[in-house]
Amino acid sequence: MLPRAVRDLTAELTRLPGIGPKTAQRLAIHLLRQPSVVVGRFATILQNLHANVKICRQCFNLSEKELCVICREATRDATRLCVVEDPLDVEAIEKTNAYHGLYHVLGGVLSPLDGIGPDQLTLHELEKRLAEHGFEELIIALDQNLEGEVTSRHILQRLPQRNMIVSRLARGLPTGGDIEFADALTLGAAFEGRKVLNTSPATLSQSS
Amino acid sequence: MLPRAVRDLTAELTRLPGIGPKTAQRLAIHLLRQPSVVVGRFATILQNLHANVKICRQCFNLSEKELCVICREATRDATRLCVVEDPLDVEAIEKTNAYHGLYHVLGGVLSPLDGIGPDQLTLHELEKRLAEHGFEELIIALDQNLEGEVTSRHILQRLPQRNMIVSRLARGLPTGGDIEFADALTLGAAFEGRKVLNTSPATLSQSS
Repeated sequence: MLPRAVRDLTAELTRLPGIGPKTAQRLAIHLLRQPSVVVGRFATILQNLHANVKICRQCFNLSEKELCVICREATRDATRLCVVEDPLDVEAIEKTNAYHGLYHVLGGVLSPLDGIGPDQLTLHELEKRLAEHGFEELIIALDQNLEGEVTSRHILQRLPQRNMIVSRLARGLPTGGDIEFADALTLGAAFEGRKVLNTSPATLSQSS
Repeated sequence: MLPRAVRDLTAELTRLPGIGPKTAQRLAIHLLRQPSVVVGRFATILQNLHANVKICRQCFNLSEKELCVICREATRDATRLCVVEDPLDVEAIEKTNAYHGLYHVLGGVLSPLDGIGPDQLTLHELEKRLAEHGFEELIIALDQNLEGEVTSRHILQRLPQRNMIVSRLARGLPTGGDIEFADALTLGAAFEGRKVLNTSPATLSQSS
């Protein structure tokens, strides 16, 4: 039987999403073979994780200070707000360089089966933020699935009656996507959102 | 950009085998969402990992004391020694309940390209152990690949000239294995090692 410390580490690693008992055991043995200083550094980072990471009090993104780097940046377009599920979505959108407005991190999507209702998300704070600030456009950038759809509709229902554009991300074929292998929903959405090429852009969406 | 603590943790996780940057980022965010006490326990286990795990001075298996549980057990068959690559192999063999002898953990296999020569393994200690103890059988239980084969041959060459059976694990179709889908090497080995069913066992190997 493996030593208790190895079994304990295996148990902790098995708790991580997508890591089964076999992989966890292999990772534990791998860590055991690393120098003490490497494992010690890993341990220290874990130990201080929560102390070193805050939640931005304005947009609920991960942050090192009270306000995150994006909310602090003076050059951002403060007339647009983009609603996302979690901080990794902010990271992904920032990498595109296609959006320069502000964000609002919901902290999840509505999922009654998992016990996630409106109170578990930052929907109330979103409502308050929309009421207090004069955003010109609200972009809903949630995953293209049932939970994302339900959450989008919920946000639309809670919107204050104001003169504000609400948009969602385009649906269609992914770049490099093959028509032959596209699923029917994606292909249907790509047809519906098709753009006219030989005249001025004729789609309804007002792009940023 | 994600907070420094999250990026540091992602970097540490990316160092683990089989975990890419995307998975590491997701794991880091997952850990961030866990209660401090859970992450703290994980950190403590990592911090004390090396202090709590020793190497058995006889067989080089992982251990909590000077001698591992298997070497300490008085009821083991001390006439047989099984050579394996690493502690996880000992775990796997112990689970079969098919072997009750002692082990010798090499700590790897010969792999010149990775800089692993005889001095990086416990081959010298194996030689010494074989010379000092009167084992009746040496079972070489290494992976069925090139490195395992080369290491097996190396062990055979270093053996003292003594009256000791040296065996290796049987090769053949895995349980549940399908002849149609077996590779040629496996199927060839299964033919070569075939057993006569209608008379007494006629294979050359002296099974334990």
